[in-house]
Amino acid sequence: MHVMKEWRFVGFDDSFRGNFGCIVGCVTAGTLVEGFMYAEIEVDGLDVTDKIVTLIRKSKFRNQLKCIFLSGITFGGFNIADINRIWAETSIPVIVVTRKKPNFDEIFNALKNVSDTELRIEIIKRAGRLFKVDNVFIQLAGCDLKDAKIFVNASKLKGNLPECLKIAHLVASAIIHGESRGKA
Amino acid sequence: MHVMKEWRFVGFDDSFRGNFGCIVGCVTAGTLVEGFMYAEIEVDGLDVTDKIVTLIRKSKFRNQLKCIFLSGITFGGFNIADINRIWAETSIPVIVVTRKKPNFDEIFNALKNVSDTELRIEIIKRAGRLFKVDNVFIQLAGCDLKDAKIFVNASKLKGNLPECLKIAHLVASAIIHGESRGKA
Repeated sequence: MHVMKEWRFVGFDDSFRGNFGCIVGCVTAGTLVEGFMYAEIEVDGLDVTDKIVTLIRKSKFRNQLKCIFLSGITFGGFNIADINRIWAETSIPVIVVTRKKPNFDEIFNALKNVSDTELRIEIIKRAGRLFKVDNVFIQLAGCDLKDAKIFVNASKLKGNLPECLKIAHLVASAIIHGESRGKA
Repeated sequence: MHVMKEWRFVGFDDSFRGNFGCIVGCVTAGTLVEGFMYAEIEVDGLDVTDKIVTLIRKSKFRNQLKCIFLSGITFGGFNIADINRIWAETSIPVIVVTRKKPNFDEIFNALKNVSDTELRIEIIKRAGRLFKVDNVFIQLAGCDLKDAKIFVNASKLKGNLPECLKIAHLVASAIIHGESRGKA
């Protein structure tokens, strides 16, 4: 696969406080900001998959997106993103990229305190294998690890995370806290 | 003045619908995204000046900001930003950069329909002279036109607007409309 400068990526991250939660998608061409998407999600709900699918399907960028990056599969508390369904319903590969290794035992244990525990566990298990690549952990739907590495590399400016994911994180945390936390 | 790559800028733009309004500040180092600020404002209110001053004063970037760019002086309907007060209360120069020439006669006329008409007109008049530079219109507080041109140039990627202003616009419009409108 030949890396193209005009490849567009979208990266989604979330933020929440109390019972208000939101997701922010940042669209980049390579590493340059092109646009944003935004939706409110239910804290500990089950609507994040549909919200992401709807944003992508309605987006003016949908035909240019090489992949959808997610900052993890749990959004707004324990609102679990079903990466296989996002891929199936958008036809765009989904790549989860996290700095910190997800502790699934801890997550499964915490899920006992929210509704639909079994369903949430099933969605998490369906997300499949966790790969370690450089300093990040990756889960995939709709592409293989070779392609995922190419997409991640084409979307990085400095550090190991796609620029769109970093910027989505900054925006989402600013919406909740007034100013972004962490570094770009 | 020698342009430094690490100069930081913040650009504020707004978006509103019905009686919900917000401002987004995007912080860049040169043209690279470093962080965001966010506050809700009252549509047709008079709180945008205080909201901007508070965001800047509380910001971790406050000591590094060379200037504050604004997309205009009217936010969230007719919530008028007092650029001289922002400069006085933050000690950071304020530079309004707009593509379209503001039609003050039209604004003054529309102000008859909101409260505090005289106060709003006074704040607008106090913003002072409108300069045409390249393809944009500029108003200033706390610096001269020579410095303003240097700041605008150091903050531009392509086109005539500071990158932080463009990105703030994209985020603010996505929050209201689900996806950003216009181009980066």
